[in-house]
Amino acid sequence: MSAADVSALDTSTARVVGVRRAEAVTEAVGERRYLHAGPPLTLDELPGPMRGALAGALVFEGEAASIEEAEAIVAAGEVEVSSAHAAGGVGAMAGIVTPKMPVVVVEGEAGAVSFAPVNEGLGQALRFGSSTPEVLERLGWLRDVLAPVLDAALVELGGIDLTAAQAEGLRRGDECHNRNVASTAALIAQLAPPIVGSDADREDAAAVLAFMAGNPHTFLAFSMAAGKAVAIAAEPALPAGTVTAISANGRRVGIRVAGAGEEWFTAPAPLGKPKLFEGYTAEDACPMMGDSFMTETIGLGAFALSASPAIGSFVGISVAEATEVVAEMRRITAGTSTRFLIPAEEFRGTPIGIDVAKVAAERIQPVVNNGFAHREAGRGQVGAGMTRLPLEPFVEAAKSLGLAPEQR
Amino acid sequence: MSAADVSALDTSTARVVGVRRAEAVTEAVGERRYLHAGPPLTLDELPGPMRGALAGALVFEGEAASIEEAEAIVAAGEVEVSSAHAAGGVGAMAGIVTPKMPVVVVEGEAGAVSFAPVNEGLGQALRFGSSTPEVLERLGWLRDVLAPVLDAALVELGGIDLTAAQAEGLRRGDECHNRNVASTAALIAQLAPPIVGSDADREDAAAVLAFMAGNPHTFLAFSMAAGKAVAIAAEPALPAGTVTAISANGRRVGIRVAGAGEEWFTAPAPLGKPKLFEGYTAEDACPMMGDSFMTETIGLGAFALSASPAIGSFVGISVAEATEVVAEMRRITAGTSTRFLIPAEEFRGTPIGIDVAKVAAERIQPVVNNGFAHREAGRGQVGAGMTRLPLEPFVEAAKSLGLAPEQR
Repeated sequence: MSAADVSALDTSTARVVGVRRAEAVTEAVGERRYLHAGPPLTLDELPGPMRGALAGALVFEGEAASIEEAEAIVAAGEVEVSSAHAAGGVGAMAGIVTPKMPVVVVEGEAGAVSFAPVNEGLGQALRFGSSTPEVLERLGWLRDVLAPVLDAALVELGGIDLTAAQAEGLRRGDECHNRNVASTAALIAQLAPPIVGSDADREDAAAVLAFMAGNPHTFLAFSMAAGKAVAIAAEPALPAGTVTAISANGRRVGIRVAGAGEEWFTAPAPLGKPKLFEGYTAEDACPMMGDSFMTETIGLGAFALSASPAIGSFVGISVAEATEVVAEMRRITAGTSTRFLIPAEEFRGTPIGIDVAKVAAERIQPVVNNGFAHREAGRGQVGAGMTRLPLEPFVEAAKSLGLAPEQR
Repeated sequence: MSAADVSALDTSTARVVGVRRAEAVTEAVGERRYLHAGPPLTLDELPGPMRGALAGALVFEGEAASIEEAEAIVAAGEVEVSSAHAAGGVGAMAGIVTPKMPVVVVEGEAGAVSFAPVNEGLGQALRFGSSTPEVLERLGWLRDVLAPVLDAALVELGGIDLTAAQAEGLRRGDECHNRNVASTAALIAQLAPPIVGSDADREDAAAVLAFMAGNPHTFLAFSMAAGKAVAIAAEPALPAGTVTAISANGRRVGIRVAGAGEEWFTAPAPLGKPKLFEGYTAEDACPMMGDSFMTETIGLGAFALSASPAIGSFVGISVAEATEVVAEMRRITAGTSTRFLIPAEEFRGTPIGIDVAKVAAERIQPVVNNGFAHREAGRGQVGAGMTRLPLEPFVEAAKSLGLAPEQR
């Protein structure tokens, strides 16, 4: 069998055009209708961090005056949640998106639009299930101050090419999933002139730039939304069985594949072997959760691990081992990127186009980079690491599409 | 013979504290008393680009109304030039420094102070010997607008640790000599908040940030001045024969070594094998010129080449070849940096402390990264590449200090 043509993943580009309230971008959010990360789940199934984030979100939206009141609304089933993917959106960790939440708006080819909530920074954050007054106050500031400032700057610039930014990120040691520092700085360098030149309040503008510069994951929201926009646009041109989404909700991890429409193939969410921050044990970690694996879906993150020795060392693996991981991923992908190039591999492209038939035949578990939330709401991040995905969703998808496992 | 202790090069740090007119930093400049890059030379000896820059500088300082008038002043010997190194300063390419020229001010340990002219950007520039009205107008803008804005921001921040910035630069694919893009973006991310928050005119502030963001070599002036500041502070604690400066003036390349004070050991400036821009031949290139090799002196540039695959590919060598270059430099150095780490070499430190006795014994020519000016004034940059230094200055220095060439 000849290599499948996944060039659509290699030619599709993404561009951030604004930072706006989610309700301006998608009709999938509304009064007490919110989005969550990962494959669909019911209110009852929400894992701890998502439940915490949902309660905070209800207060943020003015639906509840307190977290207790918000929890009662959830308990009474008086709020709807649905998978962000159905709306073309993505969210890190819990990934709760509400109408007034500021999102990065990314346009792909052929009218594709994706979005992701603005990254709130390290420490306590809604995406980890925190809903303290500080977390909600910051969300309000992101909505009222940061979003308008960034939106005006992006409009002034005519947007920023995120595909080019990701390609340059690899040259600067980011894998654009767990390491985003250089890409964040590059983003700030592009946005600072129009921000300063705008008529925004000066203290506000300075605070926006300081907030972005102080958060090494500022670029993550841009990167994952770019992944989704590329996948959406590429999907119609991809061979059946090419993975178009990897995502988890703390209960299940799921994939979507070309040829199977909106169907999710899922398995219980794995924990893997997180490198835990001091003071935590594996018991503390919530299983895989979030949509940031859209970066792996398009050939970044763990699929570009050897481009980012610093993240390798952070999760405890050497450059040689990172290169082996990427080599392994080459065996389950159909193509090689011509734009996401790995400097340490003499500028060889990253593997793109995960082929479920190859995964099933090779029985190689795809690898993703990962951050881990505490399994209890509001306790924050407890670690990071690499996670092997279970084979079941890939095998199921291959069977469902009638793809014979490809032979070696 | 046991390894010499060059730890002073590994512990000495540098901090940029301001951007000011040169006359505020050094008494070595004054009325018609200017500095130049490289070992000392006489007015008669000035190579084309330096002669062009000097004429432009005289107009910039108001000493001449036209380039013709300025050239007459030079021809009449009515201007003095001296090596910037004697004043602790450095300059890229021609490296002409005049009293009103804005310089990056860097403080090292034990009162060491270095400085370098603000980088003027790509294309036509005084440092390449250009003295067009546009070049002089930009210099005026750097002096009147950019310098005060950056100076205020740096004072507000209490300075920026350049040693840490260089270490992080290596993690982001810069070798901090010929590739400075990621470090430039990081610098902007740090400077943007105080610039925006200042009372500088907004259009000016925006223009300053745009200028910095548009020049991939913004960080170079900071990096080379940091190299000089580290070398000045470390010198008294270094073993005799450790190189403390590498520098060229278009006629001669020279080194300074610990134990020989302000003496220069020189040889004719080499051309090497520049990778020339389209349309140029080797005949067009001015031999080695400038002080930016202060980065190699402290373990960056070509000595960190394997940290920067992108610059390797720019000058036409592979990652494997870059690693070999660094390995070769390890044979002529006395130590390994504990802070400048090479990601692709599993975070092994860069070689530091070039030992003239080892160079003489091993007969390995030290390698530097290099940019090339056109040999005629005002024609701009014609290429970049790596240059092997001649052995003579190292052999001479070893002899002069009574160091027996070290045996393998």
